[in-house]
Amino acid sequence: MQIGWIGTGVMGASMAGHLLRAGHTLIVSTRTRARAQSLLDEGATWTDTPRELARQSDVVFSMVGYPSDVEEVYLAAGGVLAGLKPGSLAVDFTTSSPSLAQRLAAAGREHGIDVLDAPVSGGDIGARNATLSIMVGGERQAFDRARPLLEHMGKTILLQGPPGSGQHTKMVNQILIAGTMVGVGEAITYARAAGLGLEQVLGSVGGGAAASWALQNLVPRIIRGDMEPGFYVEHFIKDMGIALAEAEAMHLALPGLALAKQLYHAVVAYGGARNGTQAIVLALEALSGRRALADRPAFVETGTEPVLG
Amino acid sequence: MQIGWIGTGVMGASMAGHLLRAGHTLIVSTRTRARAQSLLDEGATWTDTPRELARQSDVVFSMVGYPSDVEEVYLAAGGVLAGLKPGSLAVDFTTSSPSLAQRLAAAGREHGIDVLDAPVSGGDIGARNATLSIMVGGERQAFDRARPLLEHMGKTILLQGPPGSGQHTKMVNQILIAGTMVGVGEAITYARAAGLGLEQVLGSVGGGAAASWALQNLVPRIIRGDMEPGFYVEHFIKDMGIALAEAEAMHLALPGLALAKQLYHAVVAYGGARNGTQAIVLALEALSGRRALADRPAFVETGTEPVLG
Repeated sequence: MQIGWIGTGVMGASMAGHLLRAGHTLIVSTRTRARAQSLLDEGATWTDTPRELARQSDVVFSMVGYPSDVEEVYLAAGGVLAGLKPGSLAVDFTTSSPSLAQRLAAAGREHGIDVLDAPVSGGDIGARNATLSIMVGGERQAFDRARPLLEHMGKTILLQGPPGSGQHTKMVNQILIAGTMVGVGEAITYARAAGLGLEQVLGSVGGGAAASWALQNLVPRIIRGDMEPGFYVEHFIKDMGIALAEAEAMHLALPGLALAKQLYHAVVAYGGARNGTQAIVLALEALSGRRALADRPAFVETGTEPVLG
Repeated sequence: MQIGWIGTGVMGASMAGHLLRAGHTLIVSTRTRARAQSLLDEGATWTDTPRELARQSDVVFSMVGYPSDVEEVYLAAGGVLAGLKPGSLAVDFTTSSPSLAQRLAAAGREHGIDVLDAPVSGGDIGARNATLSIMVGGERQAFDRARPLLEHMGKTILLQGPPGSGQHTKMVNQILIAGTMVGVGEAITYARAAGLGLEQVLGSVGGGAAASWALQNLVPRIIRGDMEPGFYVEHFIKDMGIALAEAEAMHLALPGLALAKQLYHAVVAYGGARNGTQAIVLALEALSGRRALADRPAFVETGTEPVLG
């Protein structure tokens, strides 16, 4: 079985590496060839276009950036669907629009090709350790076919429903994180203003009904003044934008999600687009005049903030 | 050592019971004598007023409802501070205003009385099992004095700082919960509208960066249509009101907390004041027209909702 892989950023390169090391042969294609070099060194071969890659593949995996990238990789004249043979399978790991996932699945069906949407959570560490949660939308038989390969990359692999359901599930994940992060950012803003010691506060509130992954994992970073990305602010904004657009299409009012996105816009204004999601605290403290915009340049240059609290 | 206990609601009765069973003698007072009956049956004695109770006590504990109750219990002519001897100690477990806690501590100091603010988290189960987190504000020596008694009631007992710091820490706890609950409510609203199966979604999102106590403990209740209170909506609204007033006094903008409180007002409008905090999903689904107000009467009468999703 010939496997094609499109998109070799931090996540994609780690995930594709697991397939190579499991003994699969891999053709790769990506916008910047240099970013595929580690996979080429491990034995993958290169092709120039998604269509050419698809022509030589039985299964194609993709992990690119934005829905517009997914659209181009799959639907353009030089794209995957123009190259794949009937009976083949494509799996998109990109966090992208549920509506687009439905369109891709429908377009694939016309050519006898199964397309699954399969966004992941778990970040670069989950990709490296093959402990990702993979949320799949599509037909059951296509899922069963993909599963043995997905098991090289993830730990929790669940079919959530018809095409688009993987993306919808990822949106649920991001909506949960958005609310939690607003709570974390405001709680820290309040705690510092009230003169509390954050580590001591964590000792009191970390074990009960206020507990969350974010509280446990991101607040210690905030205490250290570490704004380095586990997950980029700019990617989170992309995801919240997709969720809000889908929600609007369903006539849903999600005021908390809309607020979270606005606060992350303020983080970007503060210079934090390439910081981690914990940087929401910068926007909230700035909003309350507890952090001057004068801090910004140093913050932008180093990717971390000079002084915290 | 004579201990006085004021306020014998669900939490207070459980907590006071631990002191009795540890061999301490207890005088109790509460607004409705019948609610103290179980403690009286276990050997506690009754007094009519907080002042009379305080006169006979070396240490007074209180667990009442609202800040106005705390103010009356401590500062009224028939209150605790009018009865306690110099050198005695008072500990208020009520979740109340940090500013009021500072006033009580200052008023106590004038009479040579130590007053600690010591709100708790962990709910009725934590009170019953003596696993509460007790967040204390006050002087170190007063804390050291109270600690052996507090250890009968809680597991995590931390001095957070000067008077009011216990209340401030509890506010941090509630701000965290507010954000998380908005995320949970909106995520469920989205998931149902998108046609996802909530249990399956939990399988994908429950183990990663979206994880929280609320997701793990309250979403299964929502799935079952169980709106019974772990923590009452009306008490949560009280707490958020205190946090917002304190934040305003510090000139802090907490838009997420303000939004959460508004959504919980809508839960009350929906008839859910005595439901648990998971009832936020009712307000959010009503907001998006996914739940008709016609559901309300049955919901009001039973305290649970007739049909979910």
